[in-house]
Amino acid sequence: MKNNTVAVFTSGGDAPGMNACIKGIVDYAFKNDMKILAIRSGYKGLIAEDFIELTPEMVKDNMHRAGTFIKTSRYHDFFKPEIQKKAVEILKNHNINYLIGIGGDGTYRGLIELKKLGINVIGIPGTIDNDINYSETSLGFDTAYNAATENIKAASESMRSFDRVFVAEVMGRHSGNIALNVAIASGADIVAVPEKPITADNICKKVNAVKAKGNNSPVIIVHDYYPYYDELLNKLRNVCKLEARSQIIGFVQRGASPTAYDTILGWSYGIHAIELCLKNKFGIAIGTQNNRIFDCDIEKSLTYPSNFDIDLYNKFDI
Amino acid sequence: MKNNTVAVFTSGGDAPGMNACIKGIVDYAFKNDMKILAIRSGYKGLIAEDFIELTPEMVKDNMHRAGTFIKTSRYHDFFKPEIQKKAVEILKNHNINYLIGIGGDGTYRGLIELKKLGINVIGIPGTIDNDINYSETSLGFDTAYNAATENIKAASESMRSFDRVFVAEVMGRHSGNIALNVAIASGADIVAVPEKPITADNICKKVNAVKAKGNNSPVIIVHDYYPYYDELLNKLRNVCKLEARSQIIGFVQRGASPTAYDTILGWSYGIHAIELCLKNKFGIAIGTQNNRIFDCDIEKSLTYPSNFDIDLYNKFDI
Amino acid sequence: MKNNTVAVFTSGGDAPGMNACIKGIVDYAFKNDMKILAIRSGYKGLIAEDFIELTPEMVKDNMHRAGTFIKTSRYHDFFKPEIQKKAVEILKNHNINYLIGIGGDGTYRGLIELKKLGINVIGIPGTIDNDINYSETSLGFDTAYNAATENIKAASESMRSFDRVFVAEVMGRHSGNIALNVAIASGADIVAVPEKPITADNICKKVNAVKAKGNNSPVIIVHDYYPYYDELLNKLRNVCKLEARSQIIGFVQRGASPTAYDTILGWSYGIHAIELCLKNKFGIAIGTQNNRIFDCDIEKSLTYPSNFDIDLYNKFDI
Amino acid sequence: MKNNTVAVFTSGGDAPGMNACIKGIVDYAFKNDMKILAIRSGYKGLIAEDFIELTPEMVKDNMHRAGTFIKTSRYHDFFKPEIQKKAVEILKNHNINYLIGIGGDGTYRGLIELKKLGINVIGIPGTIDNDINYSETSLGFDTAYNAATENIKAASESMRSFDRVFVAEVMGRHSGNIALNVAIASGADIVAVPEKPITADNICKKVNAVKAKGNNSPVIIVHDYYPYYDELLNKLRNVCKLEARSQIIGFVQRGASPTAYDTILGWSYGIHAIELCLKNKFGIAIGTQNNRIFDCDIEKSLTYPSNFDIDLYNKFDI
Repeated sequence: MKNNTVAVFTSGGDAPGMNACIKGIVDYAFKNDMKILAIRSGYKGLIAEDFIELTPEMVKDNMHRAGTFIKTSRYHDFFKPEIQKKAVEILKNHNINYLIGIGGDGTYRGLIELKKLGINVIGIPGTIDNDINYSETSLGFDTAYNAATENIKAASESMRSFDRVFVAEVMGRHSGNIALNVAIASGADIVAVPEKPITADNICKKVNAVKAKGNNSPVIIVHDYYPYYDELLNKLRNVCKLEARSQIIGFVQRGASPTAYDTILGWSYGIHAIELCLKNKFGIAIGTQNNRIFDCDIEKSLTYPSNFDIDLYNKFDI
Repeated sequence: MKNNTVAVFTSGGDAPGMNACIKGIVDYAFKNDMKILAIRSGYKGLIAEDFIELTPEMVKDNMHRAGTFIKTSRYHDFFKPEIQKKAVEILKNHNINYLIGIGGDGTYRGLIELKKLGINVIGIPGTIDNDINYSETSLGFDTAYNAATENIKAASESMRSFDRVFVAEVMGRHSGNIALNVAIASGADIVAVPEKPITADNICKKVNAVKAKGNNSPVIIVHDYYPYYDELLNKLRNVCKLEARSQIIGFVQRGASPTAYDTILGWSYGIHAIELCLKNKFGIAIGTQNNRIFDCDIEKSLTYPSNFDIDLYNKFDI
Repeated sequence: MKNNTVAVFTSGGDAPGMNACIKGIVDYAFKNDMKILAIRSGYKGLIAEDFIELTPEMVKDNMHRAGTFIKTSRYHDFFKPEIQKKAVEILKNHNINYLIGIGGDGTYRGLIELKKLGINVIGIPGTIDNDINYSETSLGFDTAYNAATENIKAASESMRSFDRVFVAEVMGRHSGNIALNVAIASGADIVAVPEKPITADNICKKVNAVKAKGNNSPVIIVHDYYPYYDELLNKLRNVCKLEARSQIIGFVQRGASPTAYDTILGWSYGIHAIELCLKNKFGIAIGTQNNRIFDCDIEKSLTYPSNFDIDLYNKFDI
Repeated sequence: MKNNTVAVFTSGGDAPGMNACIKGIVDYAFKNDMKILAIRSGYKGLIAEDFIELTPEMVKDNMHRAGTFIKTSRYHDFFKPEIQKKAVEILKNHNINYLIGIGGDGTYRGLIELKKLGINVIGIPGTIDNDINYSETSLGFDTAYNAATENIKAASESMRSFDRVFVAEVMGRHSGNIALNVAIASGADIVAVPEKPITADNICKKVNAVKAKGNNSPVIIVHDYYPYYDELLNKLRNVCKLEARSQIIGFVQRGASPTAYDTILGWSYGIHAIELCLKNKFGIAIGTQNNRIFDCDIEKSLTYPSNFDIDLYNKFDI
């Protein structure tokens, strides 16, 4: 008979590295003779009792794929108290000793509610936006900015052939982490991040300054809620009289095969989660600080200030 | 003293493989003691007399880059007779014996006019759309559909994690070649190509059929002038009641580093162009037929019927 | 009840595109209400009766993976008549109406023997070496030379930093197809192919000629049975007094994820194989000629002269 | 007139990210009106006075390439005192105020000698092996283990098709950092690192244990000076009676295009080096500690204990 039962689920936006994380969990739990259930499609699947048992064979094949093979969802009903109570009941009926959720802030808020209702929870940061501030990085971020960078490097080759200006929108929600990293890595000239608001007019001024130095194909990276996107394109074309092209980089940031870094990070987080279970430690959000794995009280995990690297921004914006 | 002078230019949309083609031209022309000029930025640069001399060192470093390092442009004024006359004058003043243009149908139309005015022209098909019908393939097509396929494979991983329907728009202008190849190669379920018009309603029917077979994340590839794009998304969401996401795949199709195939094709076309010069053959559009290099009278080159592979389409649409 | 039963197997060296081919077979056979068995691990699995039934779900996930998910083997005992008789018996016991084998010349020789014993066979060329001469291309070739090219382009960057000479060995067995394509696509300077034997001394002469033109990092591509490999390295170092490095490119040529071209080719061959079954046509080797799918009498398929592109070689060796 | 002159060189093994580092140096030095010289081919070029002036245009195009466009070398004569004196003289004749060297421990030893002779030196860790222990990471490490991982993932697909055992040798010199990261990221089963010596017999035991759990294609990663490589292959084949294949992964680890991480790291180090110059700080080795840029006394930089992640190793070796 198995010692204990662990349930794992992914919730909210999928992120490359989630499958490697599940592999770490399953490999180490099996070694310790635990039973592993996957709750498919996140909180929605929890309420629907969509559970499957995981084996090492199942995870091996999926570890290098993006997305999450145990599926995910956004399920806003989970914030209703009666739904949360039902979740607790289901978890108890299935004799689940530990519940590991992989996702972003929405996932964590659900875990915090379940913790308050007596469930032994562990949170793992899985979001390409890297906006879970207690942790220096989250699953999928390295993959996302690498994939965006490759796409923008490619597009830039076409732009240069025509001496065109290029505006590329990358993901990140309310964080400029992807935008800033992509801007530097792709060799772009200008970046707009939510942490340092910039008007369309000021971007146009920078474009003119870049052109004045002899670069005829300035590249501008903007975060995905940049409020002056349309105005910027309009001014580049009609005020600056430049041939401008734009692109929303899109889902490749989310679906690219995980980088080696994200694979290792996911797998390490997964192993560590089971280490915590074996030590009977719960209510923890796993993360990275000072480049080392870090255990954070899950209730405090969402109260940290922004992890945006303002020093790096200042280096870029010289 | 150099034997003869060849001028090469790229015009219209840039395509991966153009730089490898220029390398083939330069390498073989140098071997035969010819002088090579690049006319920068296509027909616009011809009128502006923006000429540079090319050397083997210059082309070696650029052969694996996308775009065209001798730049390109769209220059509609070239269809004015007085501009064409000026071009002829400039070419004669520079003692250019052979003029090689790399591009799509617009490029060819310009070359045909110059031929009529006595210039020794050679055309090389460089367009990711593969819509130069006398040739089975053109520079950049292999790269474009590979790059689009990789992006769509990635996006599909995210879609499957959520059981979402995905609509991806690829390039191709009035040709379905990219769309069809991408659809098959990415494992998509449905394709819309201009050669076989399909309504939004009929795509919705196919989506439902795919779902009925147990696939919860149908992927639909549409060409870039699909007229019912917005209607399709609207109906998928509001009539079929499905969670649908869409993406315009964009410039990565144009700017990805050329595949080995496109590099070899470009280089081979370049060598062959100089072979033709050495044999004093002109007025030729180089292409591929029956998987072999093929010389086509440039005036006839634009009169061929569509090279869309209807058999392949029928295999896919079973 | 299912109409008919098709069995498919892969044999000999694995090749990217085999899984896409199996997908084409399964998708189209299912549509036509046929039963599909996979014989795992090739002829060895046939004798061991290692059969599994295939479904569309199984093939969807595997189509983009290299290798062959139904496994392969080399099984020399199959050339014993008593083993062949046993194979026929097993195929009849399982009521297999059509047998599709994917592989290289060894696979074909087995199929030809089974045909003589009354089995309805179809052969599909799957070998990265592209040495099945009746066909212009075979599954995996495009992927193999692309993957080798990427590795050599990367290594060349390191070589140039040191002004080193580089010798890279690629696959191909007795065919120079991979070596020649890689040499051109990677921008290498010298190639050794079995079809045009070249001594180590003559390569050294070419190396000196390349250096005399100002290129301090000549790159030499050799096929994998190049008989003077050690002598070449020795002479480059000790006679030419050059800093030389070498590398065997290896399994990435076999295991890289299939290119879009190989995926489409595999899938098309698979669809076509079932089309032949539906028309009751057998004893056929499917291939490509003049860039179109081509049906070849399987007994004649191994008698064609080399498909090595001597014109392309001559263009390179100018 | 320019304010000050900075000279930069790369030395020892090339590493992806070196060119991005040079870009950071040049961009920020230009902004501060400094003159930038590159010393080509490292210490050898210093003695040969092979200097070129760098401009922002030159660095832009090279930032995404692997290798080092200002070339590198190994030059053991530099440890002779008279050669060092000559170097100092040359640096003074060229009015070089600051000397930035990018490389590994050999590069640093040279810089330390020059510092003792009065030169204002700054060291930047550029080595794929990540064996400069004062720093958590060095330029090229992220690229190297990603590239090796991709190659091994590919090879593993071929191995699985045949149920073969695979032994892959990766780089790292006397450090197991690459080997361990690759082992985890590629999903390998066993790793041999110099920090935890393991006999061929013990690897064979582990292989048998892996197979006993149902995995027929164990993958073993060994570092590049693993002393029992031949013995291991021999025992796998002749004692364990397994079909084993091996590969030296080679130069792709060194020459792959830099990852986004390495590009950002290199560029940041370059900016920071100029920041130090502007503050008149020298004798410093730049690095990373606790995930932040860190200034280390260059004479102490080589005295740190190994940065090998023993915790990660223990997680893997469970």
